Amino acid sequence: MTRTALAFVAMTFALGATKALAADATQLEINKKSVVEFYDKAINQKDFEAAAKYLGPRYTQHNPGVADGPEGLKAFLGFLREKFPGARSEIRRVFADGDYVILHVHAVREPGARGAAIVDIFKLENGKIVEHWDVRQDIPERAANANGMF
Amino acid sequence: MTRTALAFVAMTFALGATKALAADATQLEINKKSVVEFYDKAINQKDFEAAAKYLGPRYTQHNPGVADGPEGLKAFLGFLREKFPGARSEIRRVFADGDYVILHVHAVREPGARGAAIVDIFKLENGKIVEHWDVRQDIPERAANANGMF
Repeated sequence: MTRTALAFVAMTFALGATKALAADATQLEINKKSVVEFYDKAINQKDFEAAAKYLGPRYTQHNPGVADGPEGLKAFLGFLREKFPGARSEIRRVFADGDYVILHVHAVREPGARGAAIVDIFKLENGKIVEHWDVRQDIPERAANANGMF
Repeated sequence: MTRTALAFVAMTFALGATKALAADATQLEINKKSVVEFYDKAINQKDFEAAAKYLGPRYTQHNPGVADGPEGLKAFLGFLREKFPGARSEIRRVFADGDYVILHVHAVREPGARGAAIVDIFKLENGKIVEHWDVRQDIPERAANANGMF
């Protein structure tokens, strides 16, 4: 193979690798944007129809207080709307890795309450949300350090 | 600029971009490995000296039950060692994004207990752990779905 041909092969390979890595990075950003929009429509706006557009063909639920599937989410948002219409969740950090998006959230069910720290984990397939895990902890009145839970 | 020169510039740029993206991906894997090792030495082995090697010049603590800094971690591991020597934590998922590593963990303080779901978030600087947040939720006896918390 000539030097020119070798250089061409190297360039093609480098461009291919760059494109693949850049595509991965772009998909992570697209996934983050989808999850942040979904979260606001679901938890803050409590609008199931708007939120459901972000769901894939399944919505496997791991929160032990919520029934499985899109219907479980619908019932949970109905409960929030009725019992805690002023509930607000503020996303403090957003992470993405592979098919997953992770949110670190400060959730307040009633205005003025200390609220809770939550981490939500969403799995996406083809850009749609298909699975959800979360962990929730009430923020205590007193803490052993002055750094806050966020 | 000649075609050859243009091709050379394009190749150099592509190689540079590939290297930068690949270096990012490699650093994420290195960070994951460091945090997983740290977690096992700290939470399972309860060995502060071994765990402390992974810490940077600070260890800012956001867990409201633990005092700030390396000394707070040392005291917490002493508490675990004394009160819950059989406590075991199993890492179920590991994520990394930028300077952060996120662990989804099943923690059991006493053998046979249902335990808790925890998400730990670690921030790294120069490959060392400098900050920690977590959220912990006891696994309930009954759940509204059959999927488990993991």
